[in-house]
Amino acid sequence: MTARQRVVIIGGGFAGLRAARGLRRAPADVVLVDRANHHLFRPLLYQVATGLLPAGDIAPPLRRILAEQRNTRVLLGEATAVNPHAQTVTVTAADGTAQRLGYDHLVLAAGATDNYFGHDQWAAVAAGMKTLRQAVELRDRLLHAFETAAASRDEQARRRWLTFAIVGGGPTGVELAGQLAALARRTLRGQFHDLDPAHLRIVLTEHGDAVLAPFPDPLRRHAHRRLRDLGVDVRLGYSAADIDEHGITLQSAHGGDPQRLATPTVIWAAGVTPVPLTAQLAEDAGASRDHKGRIKVRPDCTVPGHPEIFAIGDLANVHDLPGIAEPALQQGRYVAKVISHRLGRGPHPGLFRYLDLGTMATISPFDAVADVRGLHLHGPLGKAAWAGVHLAFLTGWPNRLGVLANWAWTLGSGRRQQQLILDTRTVRPAAARPA
Amino acid sequence: MTARQRVVIIGGGFAGLRAARGLRRAPADVVLVDRANHHLFRPLLYQVATGLLPAGDIAPPLRRILAEQRNTRVLLGEATAVNPHAQTVTVTAADGTAQRLGYDHLVLAAGATDNYFGHDQWAAVAAGMKTLRQAVELRDRLLHAFETAAASRDEQARRRWLTFAIVGGGPTGVELAGQLAALARRTLRGQFHDLDPAHLRIVLTEHGDAVLAPFPDPLRRHAHRRLRDLGVDVRLGYSAADIDEHGITLQSAHGGDPQRLATPTVIWAAGVTPVPLTAQLAEDAGASRDHKGRIKVRPDCTVPGHPEIFAIGDLANVHDLPGIAEPALQQGRYVAKVISHRLGRGPHPGLFRYLDLGTMATISPFDAVADVRGLHLHGPLGKAAWAGVHLAFLTGWPNRLGVLANWAWTLGSGRRQQQLILDTRTVRPAAARPA
Repeated sequence: MTARQRVVIIGGGFAGLRAARGLRRAPADVVLVDRANHHLFRPLLYQVATGLLPAGDIAPPLRRILAEQRNTRVLLGEATAVNPHAQTVTVTAADGTAQRLGYDHLVLAAGATDNYFGHDQWAAVAAGMKTLRQAVELRDRLLHAFETAAASRDEQARRRWLTFAIVGGGPTGVELAGQLAALARRTLRGQFHDLDPAHLRIVLTEHGDAVLAPFPDPLRRHAHRRLRDLGVDVRLGYSAADIDEHGITLQSAHGGDPQRLATPTVIWAAGVTPVPLTAQLAEDAGASRDHKGRIKVRPDCTVPGHPEIFAIGDLANVHDLPGIAEPALQQGRYVAKVISHRLGRGPHPGLFRYLDLGTMATISPFDAVADVRGLHLHGPLGKAAWAGVHLAFLTGWPNRLGVLANWAWTLGSGRRQQQLILDTRTVRPAAARPA
Repeated sequence: MTARQRVVIIGGGFAGLRAARGLRRAPADVVLVDRANHHLFRPLLYQVATGLLPAGDIAPPLRRILAEQRNTRVLLGEATAVNPHAQTVTVTAADGTAQRLGYDHLVLAAGATDNYFGHDQWAAVAAGMKTLRQAVELRDRLLHAFETAAASRDEQARRRWLTFAIVGGGPTGVELAGQLAALARRTLRGQFHDLDPAHLRIVLTEHGDAVLAPFPDPLRRHAHRRLRDLGVDVRLGYSAADIDEHGITLQSAHGGDPQRLATPTVIWAAGVTPVPLTAQLAEDAGASRDHKGRIKVRPDCTVPGHPEIFAIGDLANVHDLPGIAEPALQQGRYVAKVISHRLGRGPHPGLFRYLDLGTMATISPFDAVADVRGLHLHGPLGKAAWAGVHLAFLTGWPNRLGVLANWAWTLGSGRRQQQLILDTRTVRPAAARPA
């Protein structure tokens, strides 16, 4: 009897979790490594950041999802190194202890992190939107900004605290801007009698010449118009020249003097970059990376020269697919089939082919844009499609029902069930906190 | 026309919030000051700490509760000083800015904080259970302990991580011990195939000679037996001699050598003490305090010599009532009537009289003890009474429905909707974290 082979999957996001589930009947020992104990349904993260959803509704525990899958073990920790020659992964736990895991097949699906384009010091000032913790901290900061404005007797200070700058006009920035407008206008207005609604200012900056760049032009223009109707100040052709705890300096791509926006609340939605492990592995395995830092994988999602290493999701480049859920899910399912085939189960699936199911972004309670295989939807119809797809892709019925109940409640009453400041220590940017 | 009088209420807990609501028709400007933006329904805090409830379900925003009350303003900040001679309160916001508020009537209802009985260094090691943030941090620590045990290959380390010490056998400690047993046995057992359930150890220590001291003896004995049935190791007559990041040393009241319990997870439920502002105000107003640090107020809840200052809730001693919700609520309602009378609305309510409606504590999913005016309930009947009373006292129907749905879901499936580690930085006691 030969020993069972071991598959190590790094990352429990869309790509890694789908790969793990695809291996549920594989004759192998599967180990899923993640820094978090939960899968994160990131498409709804901005709804946690604005108090609409409780964190648990979009973060089912990995162990619960995989509880019945007896060939799979979950290991909480950060994969800090991969040795492609010895075929080992080093996993470091939160308490600092490290262990090394051997693998026969490795699936690298550890995702991406915020990209500050060389200005890493901005991370301590501009709120990121990648993890659940960041979303909860951003919620604290947003709600605290309204409270501080209300407590202040200085009109300039009130205006500063009611100014919110969002950097990046992709889906993350657009959805957050729309939701922040709804938070201010529908939820908070009736609670802050002492604030002048005219002082509210939500500025969305995008360095390109349109919001929602991946979408077809008519939908981009629709989104832009609707954001303007919601009172969002959309600035195209601007990028961040500097960010500190007092505000952001914007530079136009068309020249002219830089513009300064005084605000303690800058939110970073401008781009992502693969986790640091990606560069280490690429170097040691002799693989090359694209201009976004993603590993250029072969058409079967393996790292060149290392058929036992797969790289999928946001840190891999196969057909230059965008960093959204659907390509990651399809890649996860694909590599599970390849590995199963190597273990003697099922046919080889051939080369990876992406089936584009479309892309969507929500703007307001009754408006979303959707491009579904050439069919362009917007308005309430787009919103209905958006809601249906997001509910369908959530993991588990309790989460679906919880999200649906919260949506209905907020839509009907304007209230948000998680309108709470959890931690007053994090309400200011890290750079501005007392030591 | 004379200027309207101003009532400042410090604290939005049971006492302060009830006082504010009681003043909704008073011809005065009411300002409610709190460090948090929410009222906290603390009787269910342990259910947030064990992943059963989302934080928002027990923390309605103060501004939402008071949104329709046009004579009342909410101010987020900490009351850092009271000057009883100048009749001013200093309120310091999270960003460090301070402002001074004059008052005509002051209601001090700022509550209590953990009491480490002279060992304040234990606060950095032993998890407290007073605020929402502490509950979420405790949830992170509890879930992380199971993950670390599962990741460890050292049996001694696994045993340490599966040992949980709760100091204090009052309602807080008992309810948390029972709920932690349910978390381990009902929710997590099926998800941690790699752990030996026999290694789980929940130790509840109480320096007195019974758990649930405020309850009648038959109910205490019932609770003790049920905790033992749940596998909780109840140690009576023990108090903490030392706590550090590696464990707790227990000393028996009956002598003998100290006992050492190796565990990174110690939870402090041993007692509370009035917030520091209490001592400052008592000294400046010339009022005396009892052995628990509470201001000894007159039978109308005013501070002796200062009829314009009321002290209620956990920081005040009137008839030596226990620090639970019901006395605080009744005192809040009472002082609102006294102040209204002084403002020319309604009769004087006479001296404060407490109507004892009973006391309850839950032990397990189907068991609670309740002492309702001499009627002793336990088992499923006690639990039904407990559930009904807690639902009735929650603020607002969305919270009631949310809590009820979560209870039903967890009761039926064993699952917990908020089984998530939010922040891996806080999973170890503060004293054990890297700088």
